Amino acid sequence: MLWSGWGDPAQARELPEPIRGLLRDLLGVRAPDAPAATLESVRLPPAALPGPLLAALAGIAGAANVRTGHETRVRHTRGKSTPDLLRMRVGDGSDAPDAVVLPGSHEEVAELLRLCSEERIAVVPFGGGTSVVGGLAPARAGFTGVIALDLARLDRLRSVDAESMVAEFEPGVRAPEAERLLAAHGLTLGHFPQSFEYATLGGFAAARSSGQASAGYGRFDDMVAGLTLATPSGTLELGRAPRSAAGPDLRQLVLGSEGVFGVITSLRLRVRRAPAERRYEGWRFASFAAGSAAMRALAQEGPLPSVLRLSDETETMIGLAKPEAIGSGGSGGSGGSGCLLIAGYEGTPGAGVPLEERRRAAAAVLARLGGEPLGEEPGLAWERGRFAAPYLRDSLLAAGATVETLETAGFWANLPRLYDAVRLALLGALGSPLVMCHVSHVYETGASLYFTVVTPQDADPVAQWERAKAAASAAIVEAGGTITHHHGVGRDHRDAYGLELGPLGAAVLRAVKGELDPAGILNPGVLIPGP
Amino acid sequence: MLWSGWGDPAQARELPEPIRGLLRDLLGVRAPDAPAATLESVRLPPAALPGPLLAALAGIAGAANVRTGHETRVRHTRGKSTPDLLRMRVGDGSDAPDAVVLPGSHEEVAELLRLCSEERIAVVPFGGGTSVVGGLAPARAGFTGVIALDLARLDRLRSVDAESMVAEFEPGVRAPEAERLLAAHGLTLGHFPQSFEYATLGGFAAARSSGQASAGYGRFDDMVAGLTLATPSGTLELGRAPRSAAGPDLRQLVLGSEGVFGVITSLRLRVRRAPAERRYEGWRFASFAAGSAAMRALAQEGPLPSVLRLSDETETMIGLAKPEAIGSGGSGGSGGSGCLLIAGYEGTPGAGVPLEERRRAAAAVLARLGGEPLGEEPGLAWERGRFAAPYLRDSLLAAGATVETLETAGFWANLPRLYDAVRLALLGALGSPLVMCHVSHVYETGASLYFTVVTPQDADPVAQWERAKAAASAAIVEAGGTITHHHGVGRDHRDAYGLELGPLGAAVLRAVKGELDPAGILNPGVLIPGP
Repeated sequence: MLWSGWGDPAQARELPEPIRGLLRDLLGVRAPDAPAATLESVRLPPAALPGPLLAALAGIAGAANVRTGHETRVRHTRGKSTPDLLRMRVGDGSDAPDAVVLPGSHEEVAELLRLCSEERIAVVPFGGGTSVVGGLAPARAGFTGVIALDLARLDRLRSVDAESMVAEFEPGVRAPEAERLLAAHGLTLGHFPQSFEYATLGGFAAARSSGQASAGYGRFDDMVAGLTLATPSGTLELGRAPRSAAGPDLRQLVLGSEGVFGVITSLRLRVRRAPAERRYEGWRFASFAAGSAAMRALAQEGPLPSVLRLSDETETMIGLAKPEAIGSGGSGGSGGSGCLLIAGYEGTPGAGVPLEERRRAAAAVLARLGGEPLGEEPGLAWERGRFAAPYLRDSLLAAGATVETLETAGFWANLPRLYDAVRLALLGALGSPLVMCHVSHVYETGASLYFTVVTPQDADPVAQWERAKAAASAAIVEAGGTITHHHGVGRDHRDAYGLELGPLGAAVLRAVKGELDPAGILNPGVLIPGP
Repeated sequence: MLWSGWGDPAQARELPEPIRGLLRDLLGVRAPDAPAATLESVRLPPAALPGPLLAALAGIAGAANVRTGHETRVRHTRGKSTPDLLRMRVGDGSDAPDAVVLPGSHEEVAELLRLCSEERIAVVPFGGGTSVVGGLAPARAGFTGVIALDLARLDRLRSVDAESMVAEFEPGVRAPEAERLLAAHGLTLGHFPQSFEYATLGGFAAARSSGQASAGYGRFDDMVAGLTLATPSGTLELGRAPRSAAGPDLRQLVLGSEGVFGVITSLRLRVRRAPAERRYEGWRFASFAAGSAAMRALAQEGPLPSVLRLSDETETMIGLAKPEAIGSGGSGGSGGSGCLLIAGYEGTPGAGVPLEERRRAAAAVLARLGGEPLGEEPGLAWERGRFAAPYLRDSLLAAGATVETLETAGFWANLPRLYDAVRLALLGALGSPLVMCHVSHVYETGASLYFTVVTPQDADPVAQWERAKAAASAAIVEAGGTITHHHGVGRDHRDAYGLELGPLGAAVLRAVKGELDPAGILNPGVLIPGP
């Protein structure tokens, strides 16, 4: 992965001239003066951990698995939000860990947590490093040092129970590898977020990820049948049954805990039969409201497609629904007026209700509610470009534009208010940025809203975005939405989360943390609001 | 409701002679020597709360809403488990509260909790009083007294949001009243547990209830979009969106908390369109294993009926699948050999996939996996008798038989082991009881098992059942199941829950309780394992 951007550098693309023109003429984007920093030139804080402590860490994980080299430290600095990338592009590595430790087992994780508790070493659990909310930049003050606990060596599929449709994984397995391992059994998780190429299963669980096929396969937290959590106070082993009335569901306390309570060392995940058939189609609706109403009907009465996504008028016009097509001059189908909806169906002949029956029933609902069928082309274009946006971001950043995303969710009746409030906040904070939105996750009672913002970088683009982000977050809280539907809390959402949760909710989280992590070493400053 | 039994005394039925014969000849049941106690003769502990404290309670809730009369105290003593009823039948009211307080608002609940914290008065939140796991019998030691906090006056439907399909209720609304209120809007919760006639919405949430139509409508905890919890430390307001990545889901910490963290004063519940059509059918499978495999196929690949239930060979033979038919000599359809499966479909023409299409697709799966269709008669018989079992229990208790139920859940691959272990434990503990079982709640990864036991009462039937229950609970834990799928923990399951949860999980619950209920007044001795 590119240390200062996203993904395989070989996949980076120059922006086509029409897009450059649009950025220049419509938004006033100008190429930055200074070239981006090189990896070698990134400024890191002096490594704080003394030799004896490094030796003690090596005594647990092995000398080869305690790493302090410049490149390793750079590659474990922060995550992949736009401010994270902007900071790296100017060589700011101030949040780098002192060392990176790669444990090889649950027992090694548990032992490392005990050692770090005794020695007051802050521990950042590190999966794919794809956090976009500051989940990997802990508060260093008061600690002897900071280590990134990289779970890359915990990379095995432990078992498959094809009768219960449960697979047990270690947390460091990256999503594509998980799919490859499951495909050998004819199975899939069906979890395809935009971070798919790099993110790990443990990270999905810790941050409550949600994928592009969540309508059909559910959110990642829905897939977690059981888990093992190593904490400084001992091990929690949760999930003896699919569901239970035996007290509060403590799995749901670990999911979304972003490493502040412990380190997930095992996940028992619900799997599905890998689909043999897929069909993705486009529909045009006259307005975002009309398209939303159609999505709501599918969510409330069914049948729900496997993929369901609706772009607002601006996103439809710009064509970000199919980023690979940007600059191609648009297509008659999806680049026109109105709003583009993508509906995708997956299935296997002979298993469950046939794909074609589900497709026909859903199409009848979409058509009844004003949808105009556009055929398979827009669906295929969306599928080809579904992981392209982060690559596109790199090119836009280099061209002098800030591009960033933010997201929320709310109940259906509240969505129009939430949509307006966030758009207005962003427009107010940034002058005249491009603000696009789509709905990509639906529930019976509500849905998510996912915003993409493009604006010219000013002299301090990090501060510029932080102002816009603060305005959008305040608008979300004020309009009754949740501060994040699937990105997580990290440090970036912590204050807004505090408003959403209230002081008593925050006190509950602190009480749980006090029990599981009494020395407070785990990801300090992340998630839990307050002092 | 009958103070020493279940439901409307007018619905009580004498056991038909064939059943009496079966009990007498097959099980050796003999009618008890002594007649059951009368309400007036129940022995209660002296009321412990001094006048000034009663006056302080009345100062908050109103004098008419602080009650100390004999009948009121009796009617708020314990719940409706078989040991609860056996104790009441011999006049043992030793767990009675000193007073019953009926608050009229969230604010009154909050004020009562503050007063009771200061004065060390234990508080038992009381909804329908239908707990079957000792959830209403707190540990009295160390407290000035005990009040039952009866939520009957919090009985309003506050609002309906038909766009988001969310209805806000107060917690004291009984299930039939909730359905009546929603029916005026063409809506339903679809939650029909056996306790339906008396249980309240707050109780469903606090104990993670699951209804007979859970396959179609989900568990009650799935319906909770938001809630308000009054605690001695303040108020928690949870649920700004259907789902969120904003940290741990604290709703899931309150659900199943059985009143030990606070009192639920408001519930925002997902509702569905009330179905205009219903069709319930019976199927015969050669064995429990064959029927389970068919249920598993429907749960994993769909389409899932709204009601799905499979009786094992013994339950099918006895005909408890349709208790109203007991003693009728059986019916050609369902009383024969093999295992009876009930599949019920509900829907509304024009909304979603038509009932008939779903029924046909499910029937194809059932037939392919060995099911023999029995038509509608067994389905209708099940529907007529779906709430009859607790009435039947009263008659059996009076006739000298102990009848009780217990339940668990596990992953599909583990169900046969769990089934065998529980049966063997019950047979070992009780000699030769009648042990019946059904599966009534299915998930992609597993299912519940619900056992009904009938055995002749010995001289101390409470102790006799407690031995059997302890053996069954140990078997469940040992075989890897959860100690309860939908009854809850209460006091009866607390020790087994401790084994399931582990000491660190119990410590987490104590930490949360310490934050929300520092004086420890809420339902002491219930739920949380340990000292």
